[in-house]
Parts: sequence; C-alpha cells; structure tokens
Amino acid sequence: MSDTSNKMWGGRFAAGPSAVMQEINASIGVDKRMWQEDIMGSRAHAAMLAATGILSADDVAAIDAGLAEIAGEWSAGPIEEDLALEDIHMHVEARLREKIGEAAGRLHTARSRNDQVATDLRLWVRGAIDRLDQGLAAFQRALLVRAEEHAASVMPGFTHLQSAQPVTLGHHLMAYVEMAQRDRGRLADARKRLNKSPLGAAALAGTGFPIDRDMTARALGFDAPCANSLDAVSDRDFALEFLTSCMQAGLHLSRLAEEVVIWASQPWGFVKLPDAYSTGSSIMPQKRNPDAAELVRAKSGLFLGALTRLATVMKGLPLAYSKDMQEDKTPVFDAYDTLALSLAAMTGMIEGLGFHTDRMKAAAAGGHSTATDLADWLVREAGVPFRDAHHITGRAVALAETRGCLLADLAIDDLTAIDARIGPGVFDVLTVDASVASRKSFGGTAPDQVRARIAAMRAEI
Amino acid sequence: MSDTSNKMWGGRFAAGPSAVMQEINASIGVDKRMWQEDIMGSRAHAAMLAATGILSADDVAAIDAGLAEIAGEWSAGPIEEDLALEDIHMHVEARLREKIGEAAGRLHTARSRNDQVATDLRLWVRGAIDRLDQGLAAFQRALLVRAEEHAASVMPGFTHLQSAQPVTLGHHLMAYVEMAQRDRGRLADARKRLNKSPLGAAALAGTGFPIDRDMTARALGFDAPCANSLDAVSDRDFALEFLTSCMQAGLHLSRLAEEVVIWASQPWGFVKLPDAYSTGSSIMPQKRNPDAAELVRAKSGLFLGALTRLATVMKGLPLAYSKDMQEDKTPVFDAYDTLALSLAAMTGMIEGLGFHTDRMKAAAAGGHSTATDLADWLVREAGVPFRDAHHITGRAVALAETRGCLLADLAIDDLTAIDARIGPGVFDVLTVDASVASRKSFGGTAPDQVRARIAAMRAEI
Amino acid sequence: MSDTSNKMWGGRFAAGPSAVMQEINASIGVDKRMWQEDIMGSRAHAAMLAATGILSADDVAAIDAGLAEIAGEWSAGPIEEDLALEDIHMHVEARLREKIGEAAGRLHTARSRNDQVATDLRLWVRGAIDRLDQGLAAFQRALLVRAEEHAASVMPGFTHLQSAQPVTLGHHLMAYVEMAQRDRGRLADARKRLNKSPLGAAALAGTGFPIDRDMTARALGFDAPCANSLDAVSDRDFALEFLTSCMQAGLHLSRLAEEVVIWASQPWGFVKLPDAYSTGSSIMPQKRNPDAAELVRAKSGLFLGALTRLATVMKGLPLAYSKDMQEDKTPVFDAYDTLALSLAAMTGMIEGLGFHTDRMKAAAAGGHSTATDLADWLVREAGVPFRDAHHITGRAVALAETRGCLLADLAIDDLTAIDARIGPGVFDVLTVDASVASRKSFGGTAPDQVRARIAAMRAEI
Amino acid sequence: MSDTSNKMWGGRFAAGPSAVMQEINASIGVDKRMWQEDIMGSRAHAAMLAATGILSADDVAAIDAGLAEIAGEWSAGPIEEDLALEDIHMHVEARLREKIGEAAGRLHTARSRNDQVATDLRLWVRGAIDRLDQGLAAFQRALLVRAEEHAASVMPGFTHLQSAQPVTLGHHLMAYVEMAQRDRGRLADARKRLNKSPLGAAALAGTGFPIDRDMTARALGFDAPCANSLDAVSDRDFALEFLTSCMQAGLHLSRLAEEVVIWASQPWGFVKLPDAYSTGSSIMPQKRNPDAAELVRAKSGLFLGALTRLATVMKGLPLAYSKDMQEDKTPVFDAYDTLALSLAAMTGMIEGLGFHTDRMKAAAAGGHSTATDLADWLVREAGVPFRDAHHITGRAVALAETRGCLLADLAIDDLTAIDARIGPGVFDVLTVDASVASRKSFGGTAPDQVRARIAAMRAEI
Repeated sequence: MSDTSNKMWGGRFAAGPSAVMQEINASIGVDKRMWQEDIMGSRAHAAMLAATGILSADDVAAIDAGLAEIAGEWSAGPIEEDLALEDIHMHVEARLREKIGEAAGRLHTARSRNDQVATDLRLWVRGAIDRLDQGLAAFQRALLVRAEEHAASVMPGFTHLQSAQPVTLGHHLMAYVEMAQRDRGRLADARKRLNKSPLGAAALAGTGFPIDRDMTARALGFDAPCANSLDAVSDRDFALEFLTSCMQAGLHLSRLAEEVVIWASQPWGFVKLPDAYSTGSSIMPQKRNPDAAELVRAKSGLFLGALTRLATVMKGLPLAYSKDMQEDKTPVFDAYDTLALSLAAMTGMIEGLGFHTDRMKAAAAGGHSTATDLADWLVREAGVPFRDAHHITGRAVALAETRGCLLADLAIDDLTAIDARIGPGVFDVLTVDASVASRKSFGGTAPDQVRARIAAMRAEI
Repeated sequence: MSDTSNKMWGGRFAAGPSAVMQEINASIGVDKRMWQEDIMGSRAHAAMLAATGILSADDVAAIDAGLAEIAGEWSAGPIEEDLALEDIHMHVEARLREKIGEAAGRLHTARSRNDQVATDLRLWVRGAIDRLDQGLAAFQRALLVRAEEHAASVMPGFTHLQSAQPVTLGHHLMAYVEMAQRDRGRLADARKRLNKSPLGAAALAGTGFPIDRDMTARALGFDAPCANSLDAVSDRDFALEFLTSCMQAGLHLSRLAEEVVIWASQPWGFVKLPDAYSTGSSIMPQKRNPDAAELVRAKSGLFLGALTRLATVMKGLPLAYSKDMQEDKTPVFDAYDTLALSLAAMTGMIEGLGFHTDRMKAAAAGGHSTATDLADWLVREAGVPFRDAHHITGRAVALAETRGCLLADLAIDDLTAIDARIGPGVFDVLTVDASVASRKSFGGTAPDQVRARIAAMRAEI
Repeated sequence: MSDTSNKMWGGRFAAGPSAVMQEINASIGVDKRMWQEDIMGSRAHAAMLAATGILSADDVAAIDAGLAEIAGEWSAGPIEEDLALEDIHMHVEARLREKIGEAAGRLHTARSRNDQVATDLRLWVRGAIDRLDQGLAAFQRALLVRAEEHAASVMPGFTHLQSAQPVTLGHHLMAYVEMAQRDRGRLADARKRLNKSPLGAAALAGTGFPIDRDMTARALGFDAPCANSLDAVSDRDFALEFLTSCMQAGLHLSRLAEEVVIWASQPWGFVKLPDAYSTGSSIMPQKRNPDAAELVRAKSGLFLGALTRLATVMKGLPLAYSKDMQEDKTPVFDAYDTLALSLAAMTGMIEGLGFHTDRMKAAAAGGHSTATDLADWLVREAGVPFRDAHHITGRAVALAETRGCLLADLAIDDLTAIDARIGPGVFDVLTVDASVASRKSFGGTAPDQVRARIAAMRAEI
Repeated sequence: MSDTSNKMWGGRFAAGPSAVMQEINASIGVDKRMWQEDIMGSRAHAAMLAATGILSADDVAAIDAGLAEIAGEWSAGPIEEDLALEDIHMHVEARLREKIGEAAGRLHTARSRNDQVATDLRLWVRGAIDRLDQGLAAFQRALLVRAEEHAASVMPGFTHLQSAQPVTLGHHLMAYVEMAQRDRGRLADARKRLNKSPLGAAALAGTGFPIDRDMTARALGFDAPCANSLDAVSDRDFALEFLTSCMQAGLHLSRLAEEVVIWASQPWGFVKLPDAYSTGSSIMPQKRNPDAAELVRAKSGLFLGALTRLATVMKGLPLAYSKDMQEDKTPVFDAYDTLALSLAAMTGMIEGLGFHTDRMKAAAAGGHSTATDLADWLVREAGVPFRDAHHITGRAVALAETRGCLLADLAIDDLTAIDARIGPGVFDVLTVDASVASRKSFGGTAPDQVRARIAAMRAEI
C-alpha cells in the first residue's frame, strides 16, 4: 500500500484492473468513513513538512487550504466514489490535485499509504473509544438511578437460575455497573497503548527526509511516535484490542439481555418492558416481545465474529504490510456501531423497565431462600459447625416443603424438634428483608452496602 | 415475528418505537435482498389458498397480479425503504395494499412472518448454493486447463515448505480440483438437507386452516414440507451448514492464495502475476503486488467470523422463534458475496498466471529431492530394508552437499564407496523427470496419472 | 512427517532435540489414541506389500504377527510412552523392531508418515461418526418415548420466550428428534466424503513401488483411494467437517439444555429434574441444580472453539504436509468425547425428567394464547380479512385482560359487542385443547399429527 | 457451586449421581491444578475467621496446621482423585477432615465454593501472568542480542512479501521486541484489573458474619476486595482478558514463525535452523524441517479457539453463578501452557538461528529496492514533485530491468537521458547500505536508530 496502485500506474501494465479485481481490491466503500482522520493526518503532515523545510511554505499553504476545502465539501455532502481511485487516501489526493494542481503531488513526500492508513485507523479507533466510553458512562448512570430507586427492593438471587438467596434489585443492577467499569478500563488501556503515531514510518523503513515525527504525533494528539517503522505499519494490535474490549462489553450486555428476556416471560413476570423497546402483536395484543433485548443478546455473535475475523486475518502474516490487513476496517466499524447501538438500546431499556417488585419479593420468599440464614444463625449463635448446620437446615426446609409453608412460618416447636439448639431468636433472620439486611459484609447485598457503592461509583464515574 | 410489530399495532403502545429501537429492530436494509424470494413465496401461498378454497379465486387473482406488479417495479428500480415497515415482508404487504386494497390483508391468512422468513431464506440460500456451484465449477475448469498444460512440468513438491520430492505442476493444481469437488459435494449435501418447506408452519404450531403444504412445497421447488412446525420456524441449521461449507471452500482458496504469494516472491520467482490481478507501484515499478491473492487469503477470516457469529447467536436459544435469529442474514449474505468474489478472483488468477517452469524445475533439482528415489531404488533393486536404505541415502546426500553438486552428478565410485550395493542403474532414477515419471501409483504425480485424472474430472464436472 | 524425525536421525545433527522441542514436537500423548487404527493400517499395508511382491511373504508374516502381538499388549495395558519416539507410528515401529528385528524396517516401504497419519485419523473419525450416530439414535429414541407419552399434553408454545400459542409437549420434543436427524445426516454425509484412502500417497507424490491402493482401501473399508497424492496428505477437510457437524449437534443440545434450565426454575416449574442429573445443596435442600444441563449448554463453546482452532490452523497452509497439521487431533478427540458425553447426559435427562403437565397446561391457558384461534375463526367462519380479524381479536384480549379472565371465559355478549360477526361457535376454538387439536396441517401440533410423525420417525430411525 | 453437591447430600436424593453425571460434572481432573491457590485462600480465610472471632483460635490453628500438612503431601506426590468429591475444594476439605476431624467443617463458614473458586482462579491467572511476563522478557532479550549483532546487516524489507526497501535485520527483529512489549503491557493491565478479591462474596449475596474482606484481600496480595458480591462470583472477565492477551501474543509469534518457515525454505535460504529446533529426515538428510516454527504458527489456532470457547460459554448467562462457568479452566490452562511453551521454543529458535547475511544482502540489492531512494533524491535534491519523481524512477527501474542490472549499475548518461535533473550525486543513495543508513528518521531502519532503540529497550525491560 505504499504503492500507488491505481490507474495512474502508467503504461507498464498491459491490462487494466478487471472488474473483479476492482471489486475485491477497492476499499473506498469502507474506508471513506475515515475521511476526517485522513485529512487531519495530511494537514499535520503538511505542516511538519513546512516546519522542517522539506516543502515550501507556499506549497503547504496551498495544500492546507485545499484540504480544508475538501473537508468542508465532505462535511456538506457525500464523497463521490470512484473505484479506480481505490481508497480514501487516493480520493483526497485526487480531489486536492483538482483544487491546487501539481503541489498536491508533494503532499505524499516522506510518507506512504502504509503509515497513512495506520495513522488514520488509530485516530478513528481512538475517537470510537472515546464515544463508547461516554456510552458506557450513560449506561452506568441509568443503572445507578434504578439501583438507587431499588436499593432495598428484594428479589431472588439466583445460582443455576434457581432461587438461592434474597438480594436487592439495586445490588443486582450494580453488578452491571461494575462490569461496565471494567469495560471502560479495558478501553482506556487500549487507548493508551494505541496512542502512538505511525506517521513517518513511511512504507516500512522510515525515510531519509529530515522529518519531525514528534511534531506530527503531538499535532494529532498522540503521546509519541511508534518506535519501529516496520512494526508501525504492520501492527494491528490496537484494532484487535479494540475488538476484544468490545466483545467483553458485548458479553456483559448479552447477560443483562438474557435476564430481561427471562424476567419478561409470563411465568416470571418480574418486569414490564418499556413500550419503546418491545414490540407487540395485533394478533396477541397482550404480548410484549423483548425484541431489543433479544437483538442485543444476539449481537454478542457479531463481536466474537468480528474478532475472530481479524485475528484469522493476522495469523501468520509476515512483516511488514500485507494487503490482507485491508480487512481490518469492516470488523472495527461493525463492532463500534453495534456496541454503540446496543448500549443505547440497553440504556433506554433500563431507564424504561417497569419492575414488579411485589412479584420479585414474593419469588424471593417462595424458594426457602433464607435457608442459608438459618444455617448461618446456627453457626453464629449456637456454635454448630458449618457442615452440621447445613444438615439441620436441610431438615427444616424439608419440613417446610412438606407443610407447604415458608421457613419463617414454621412453629418454634417444629424447629426445636429438629435441633434443640434452635431458639426463637432465629425468626429474626428468616424473612427475606432480614436476610438481605444482614449481609453487611463489604460488597454484600444489604441496602446500606448497596447505597454506599452507588455513592462511590457516582463519584468515580 | 409472527406478530405484526409495526406502527399498525394500534393504540395500546403509548410510545412509538424510538429511533434507537427502530435502528436495532428494522431489518429492511438487509432483508430487502430477499424480495424476489418473498414474492415468490407469497404467490405460491396465495395460489394454494385459492386451490384449497380458503380464499376466493377473485381475491387471489388480485393478490397475484399485484405481487407480479410489485416484482416488476422492484426489478426496475430500488425498493423505497421505510423503517417503520421493518422488514421486506411488511414492505411487500404494504405495497400490495396500496395496489389492491383490503384483499392484501387476506394474503397473510394461515401463515406468519416466522414461516415466511424461514421460507425466504431457504430459497435464497438454495439459489446461492447453485450459483456458488457454478463458480466452483468454473474455478475447476480453469485449473484443469492449466493442469493439462503442465501435466509434465516439474516443480518441487514441498513438505514443511521444504523441497521434498519433485512433482508436476499439473498434479499440484489438480489437488485444488479435488478440494473444490469436495466443496461442491458439501454444498450439494447442504442443499438437499435444506430443501424442505417451512411454509405452513405458521407462527410455530401449524394452523387450523385446511392448507396444502405439499402444494406450496412443490411450487417452490422444495422436496417436501418440514415435518415439525416448531422446528420449521426455529431451525437455522441450513444457514450454518451453508456457512461451514463456505468456510471450508474459503480455507482452500486461502491455501492457494498463500502459494501464489510465496511463488510470486522474488526469491521464489515461480510465477508472473497477471496484470489484472496484481497491483504495481509507480515508485517501484518492478513490483507486482499479489493484492488479489492476499485479499482472498484474508477472506478466510470473514468466513470463520461469519460462522462464529451465527453459531454464537444460536447458542442456547429456546424454541421456537426468537428475535435473535434476525441476525442470520448478514453473515449468510456476506459469506456468499465473498466466496463468489474470491472464486472469480482466483479463477482469473489461475487463468492468467505465468508459470516460470524453468525456475520451478531448477528448484526441484536443487534440493536433492530425488533422495527418496535413491532410497527406494536400494529397497527395490538391492533388497535393502527401508530404514537402512534411508541411512545410506543420507550419506550420499551429505556427500553431494559437501561437493556442492546434485545427487545425479555424483560419480558411481563415490556411490559404491558409500554402499557396495549401489550400481550404475541408479542413475535412471536420480533425475527429477525420472523421479516424477516413476510415481505411477494411483493418484501419484506421474504425468500419465495426472492426465488420467484430468480426463476423469472433466467427465465428472 | 514423511521424515524420520526422531533420535535415529544419525550423526548429522550435532545437538539432540532439546526438552522444549521435545515437548512441543512430540505427539504421542495425543495420538496414541489412534493405536488401533495405526496397527490396522499397517497390517493392511503389509498384506498388500506381500500380495504385490514388494515384500517377501515371510517378512510380512513376521510383521503381521508382530503387529498382532502389539495389539494384544496394548489392549491389555497402557502404551509405554517415549517422547523420543515422538508419535504413535514410531512407537509401533520401535516395538515391532524389538519383536521381529530388521524386518520391521521393511514395513515402511512405499509409504510415509504423511499418508499413514492421514489414514489413521480418517479411520478414527469414521469410527467416531459411527458411535455418535448411535448416540444420536439413542437420544432420539428417548425423545420418542417421552413424545409419545405426551403427544396430547398441552404446554405453551413460545416465541421470544413469550407464551404465543398452545402446543403439545410431544410436538416440542419431536422438534429435537428432527434436529438430531439432520445431525445424523450431516455426519453420514461427512462419513461418505471422508471414506477415501490416503494410504499409498506416500510422502506427497505417490510412489514408484508397484503398490495396489485399491487393495488397502478395500481392506480398511474405504470406498476408494484418494485420487491425488498431494491432496491426500494435505487434506483435513474431513476433520473440519466432523467438527462442524459436532458443533451443529452441540448447538441443538445447548438449546434443549437452556430449556431444561428455564423449565426447572421455580417461577416456571415445568419439570422436576432427575436426581441423577442434578445436584442438590445441603444448605438449600429444596434446590435441584440443573448442573448437567448447564454443562451441556456450556459445551457448545468447546465445539465452536475446537472448530475455530483447526480452521485457524489450516488457514493459508501451502501444500503438502506442514507440521501445523499435527494440531488436528486434539480438537477432533475433544469434540468427539464431549459430544458423546453430552448426548449421554441429555438422553438420561430426557428419560428421567418429570413433567409437571398441570403447570404446563395452566401456563398455556394463562397467556390468552388462543387469541390466534379467535382471529382465525373470524377469518374462516365470518370471512373477516386477516388483518381486521387480528384487530378485533386484540380488543377481545384487551377486554379479557381487564376482566382478569381467560378469553374462553368472556360472555358471548361481550364478544358480539366487540364485533357482531362473532357467534357462539367461537367457544369451540378458545380452549387450549381445542386450539391444539385444530392445528392439523401437516407438521402441526395436533396430537394426531404428532403421533403420525412419531410413527414415521420410529420407522426411519 | 455454593452448594455441597457431593455424596454427602444425605438421603434426599434417591439415586446417586450416575456415571455419566459424574463424568460431566466432576472437575477434579482439571481444577486440581489450583490446589496451591485453594489452600492459600483457605489459610487466609481461616486466619481472618480467627482474627474476627468468628472461629476460635484453636480451631483455626488446627485448620491451618492441617492445611499446611496437606500442602506438604501434595507437593511431594500426586493428589488422590475421587470423582465423588467432584472438585479440588472438596478434596481439600475431605482431606482436612481426615486430619483434624470436625473442625474442618468450620472452615467453610462465611464463604462458598462460588467465591472460593473465583478466588483460586484469579490467583492462578495472576501467577500465570507473572510467569508469562518473564517468558516474554526472555524472548525480548534473545531478540535484543541478535538485533544488536545485526544492527547493520542488510536484508530486504517486504511488503506483500515483495522486496520493497532495504532494512536491517536488527530493525526487523526489533519489531518483535515492540510487539512483545505491548503483549507485556496487556498482561500487566489485565493483572491490575483482576487483582481484586472475590473472597467473602460467599454464594452470591455476601454474608452476615462480621468478616474482614480487606484482611483476606491483603493476605492474598489483592489490591482490594471486589465491590459487588454478585459480580464477584459471576465475573470471568479476567479469564477472558487473559485469553485475549495470550491470543494477541500468539499471533505475534505466528508471524515470526511464518517468517522463519519462509526464510528457511531453499529458494529463500536466509537462515539455517538450529538443530535443536528443527527435525531432519533420514530419507532426505539435507532437509531441516522447521517443525518448531510450524507448531508455534499453528498454536495461534489454540489461542483463538480457547478464547472463542470461553466467550461462547459466557454469552447470555444470567447472574450469578451458573455451572457453565466451570468450563473456564481448561481454556485458561491450555492457553497458558501453550504460550509458555511457544515462547520458550521461539526464544531458543531466535538464539540459535544462523543468519545467512550474505544471501539477505544480495536479495536486498536484487529487487531494485533502492528505487524509492532515487525518487526521494529527486524530490529532495532536484525539487521534483513526489508523484513525478516516482514516474521518473519507474522509467529508470524499467531500464535496469531491461539491462538485467542493478539501479546502481546504470550509467549516469542513461539516467540523465531519462530525466536531466538526475546528477551523479544520486549514486550516493543507490546502494542498499546507503539506503539503509539514510533512513534516520525516528524509528527508521538506519543502524544508529536501531542501536538507539536497542539501548532504550534494554533499559525498559
């Protein structure tokens, strides 16, 4: 790609690129999306060429004005694509030549399409990371609002999708705030690592022109230039790391989406889906289909697919630039679009979900979910070893099941008959509210713990 | 999707679908590609509704004429997309209503979008398979032509990318004919398995209308109706099987592409790339970059990514239809487009490759690649056990390496000094031509074997 | 791998393979699993060498007896592994040499490890396919038994995990019989395609010995020899196709597993898990965790991972044999073991599941799931266009929801007030039993349809 | 997994776990590898239980001594596995009970297997990261040594595997040092993010015991406790992030491995493989097969497969713990083992590679690879616009090709005939040494730049 592989090759190629070749080779349909980054990079490069005396101030003034004009045009309307001009870099240069003539040909001094495209894509991914960070923060804020509202609303905590112990809905929602925080951390780390400038690596070997790579790096907001020119043009780590970060975020969303789908099912009935994020049926008007959640759940496939795609492309590629790497953009763009959209959808979903807290609480109480509390009471108050306490509890639960009642509704005599060490104080821990309130260990589900964490995360976000 | 989840839901939904929801939910941008299949399916369905008396002949005549008109319109120009109409099914119905009024509303009798979309996609994939089969056959024919031309051209056969034994270029090219034949077999098997009609499964449970599923199946070229309505609407096996078949074909192309890239490298110099399938460089005009081959090699990522995507989507989906399954089309369409394009590119590549048979033959001779022939001669003619023969051969090769000459250029005295059982007859097998000619076992590289296989494959294709 | 890359290389290599090299290079820990196939292949090869006069009858008799002895030893106890002997092929040969001396060295005449390992793996995969086919048939039989038992048991049919229309449990279970039938079809097609013999392709080019490849192919149960020696040793299509077939079967099991997990949750309560396929909790003895189902669901990751692994390995490999291909066995063995185990677990699960048909039926009735039946009645009996019928139905459902009753419990006056065309005959279709019975179209959920399909599948399996 | 799902369930389960269930459910064969982490975690937990007064000092002393004894035993010899005891946690507890009796049953107070296994695996992955960091550093050091040795050795720099511009071998090797540095950065970031303690999250909700999570976190070297108990037990981000980091490192190694394979091929002949990392052939003793490099290249499949596996497992899992997550360990262990081994192999490979610098330099000169230098000279010295300079250069190269000579061997008259602005000073830039020396921009291939970077990286590593 350091090469000018377009129709201007001159006469040496007897046959022009066939239609098939043009279709497989041209990337303008995809990479035009980086036109702003391309112009930004070219302007920084041109300014540096002037500052170092490689080009004349006049030439660079013309180039810069021309590029600014093109930016104006393409902000206003679509780029006129020409497959023969292959990619966005050639489109910019060709348009510039139309505007300023021969001086356009000097812009490419001391650079190559290889470092240029690497620069463009890094800039683009950096912007994408910044926007996704905002999307994740908005998602967190929506969760925080609902978590605060439901810091004390009791629901069943599940393991194996079996009701295990009561938790609060606020606590449950806060788990996703933690996940999103890690997602933001991964993106931030990826951003730091990508924020080096390939510009000036030229085709692969650096250049003999007395360029100032620090200057262009600074102008483009990079922390430093890439330290090895071969690596600079052959590296797509940053794209892969972006994709892995998106994939992990997408998996988190898929888990929340699965929960929304299950919670919205009739047997569960934990939530009423917001009108805006569900679809109905004229034939079954009572139905609200969780389409948005299902689609978000499905999008985890896109993220893993995009990552698999680029990883497979990079496998076994010798240095430095190979054309294979042109396949880097579609997965990156797709993953960005999809994660941004999924975050928007799930943010709206969270904001609009109606929680049937009564059904949640009833479900929490229904599963003998305070059995652990009884066992822990035996350990704590009666000094029974943990494993024995659990066996005693098992007998109590079995009795309650036989009776068709809750643990808390058993008579004290029934309980002492099972084990004499059980005293009436036990009833203080057998309700779901008591259970939840008791789990005050750091990070536990007690409403005070949940509220403390909400406050902490508000400050952090 | 059995539901009419569009703006016509009526008043029960206070808020309309938000922009985010519309963007994530609407599929018209993707599924419009199946408009022909959708109309074809609707016409078959309508004809059956008339034949069974479910609809009146007049209604069906109007419906059929209206659908034919729509097909005419959309053959002539693009579909006017309306996100509020979500998908291609609603676009057809809405347009039909504009044309024929209320009768349009009767078309959806005894079916649902669930069986409709499954039918459309099966029809589409079936057509894609047929076109890819032609593409594979064209690729095979190109290979056969070049294989015949080079049935006796000697090149090094490689293991571990090390020259191992001489083979013929024709034999090498024929290996790809075999691969493509298996690819066609996989697609043919997938076609057979998919060729059942979901139409009439309705939303998920079948229908109470006295429909004739055999009639619609026949009309659409299916072998039979799907035998279980739940399975009919929730099954995407056929899409996955299509993707796995594409992936395997794509891997074959990636191997050939890798070889083209290596063969075109200067140290190798086995081929001259066709102008139409390479790019040059104004700066390094001697270069011909194997862009097309690199891109085809990279496309293996797309196939594996597409497959990973849909497999991930389908993981753990409860029956019957879930909206997640709307994500089936993009990977299928992408894989088809990419495989069709890759086949076209590699067919053109094969047709246009210039083979430097002189360099190939020289390379074949250079690597002492007839060492096995010496060893086999010892076994065959002198009764030396295989493992011993190899050790003797090793010493001969080591001597040739020391001398800087070919095995065939060693003196008979040198050879008998290594092992007395070696006689002058050995020189009959030490040239690359002799080596190649000797491998006459079925499927071996001897030119006659190659030509026989070319003839057989021509007959089979 | 055509090479004898072991310690017997002789003196040319100054340094022996280091420990690291031995660890990465030796495959005996994995490929010993193919010892029976390796010996079987060697015996067939030896018999052919005798029949064609390439080896003496005496040598072959000794070889055959020695191989039989080794097979006896390794049937009785574990193979003594020696990393220096790298792989199973060298272990067999070394052991044979210990038993019969020099003649062992003749066995490798006219073959190579390249065709040998390809033969072994094809034989192994063929056996694996046959065993999986039996496992799938057993799974189908278990489903058929339960489906027959519940051919008329009503449960909700779901779309979007929302109750949509009543279906029968038998019909639902039969959907998985259809899936398993396609899985068997894919494996059968893969078996047909793989059933060609690579033996005799030798290192890559065929051989000059007058071997009879048909004879060895027949002896090993292959349909024919592979027709291109380069392809024979470099092809791993059959392994990939095996993996894709396993993956698709694994996805089906993941869907059933997801359903078991959801059905076993307390809010759902559709099933009681069999003791043998769930785990309990001493602390929450009322719990039955669906561990087996969860693990089966998770295994879909293994299948997709195994496939991804081998596909990535094969990407861009030049012909013929590359050592990369040694990585083919672990994914194949893992996928086989996991699918066999998953099938056994789900077969046992299906056999042992207790269905709470009362809860299922109540859930089916609860969701106004006969709304479609009302709409269809309007179309069928009152000639109302489909879309209008749905709007009328929507109003009826809305009324029932307001009243907190079932559709079937609305008074006829209420219904005629909504639309005068509704008559008392409508009540014939508003119960879940009536709904289910009415869906008599081929493949529909009507008990008679289900029973007919059970009979047909019993005959087919 | 908070549950004691073992044979001790008591009488409530009529049937014991069947053999199939045991095989699919038991994880001891895999998770025994974390026995040290499990004991370490238990000792920290016990110490905390004593410090907070939850257990008596005596009980904890007995527990601690017992655990220390077990650690001693298992350091000395293998763990006796019992499938009925399912996992490593139960094995430790059962052995502890044998040693200290009833007090063993108190150890599990205020924790659950859910937080325990999450803690164990985080500790294990943390250790794995530390060891891989050392492996990557060793790999870097090996590269630095060879890069320094070859800071001025000229080789062709490739794009599209076509010789493009001369670079130095040192510069090429340093590209991999940069990659490895990013790999270390990713692992370090993953380490920071994982270094939170799940211990004390208990089953999913936290606990009512007055535990001190900071104390256990500190004792185990964690930075802090996880802030949400549901997240703590359901999160496997750290495992996925470990796998993505391994995958990216593995891709880098696959690129180097591909280069080694190509460089070692006869037409290339850039390297002589070290004896210890290649295999020979008794039949073709001149061959050195790059087995180690091929296997390392293939291992990229394992990494991507392992990642795909776990990502697929986690897709759509509702909170909190599901048994599916038991499938997290095999991919993590496999990826660690494979990356550690691959790094060792490639470190040894780099240390032992013999570079044929003469052939490299000749190849660099052969491809008219200083064409860019001529073009740049025209821009720099003669003020020719970049694009024009390239066309002039193209004509010069075409002439050299026709003459069959190097650019540097053309006569000045030939050059001035092409363009009058070319003067004799041009010969200063047309040799490969001059070309390389001129690329002095930061990160360029000039030997001084390479040496400066080597010094900087030595300091950084």
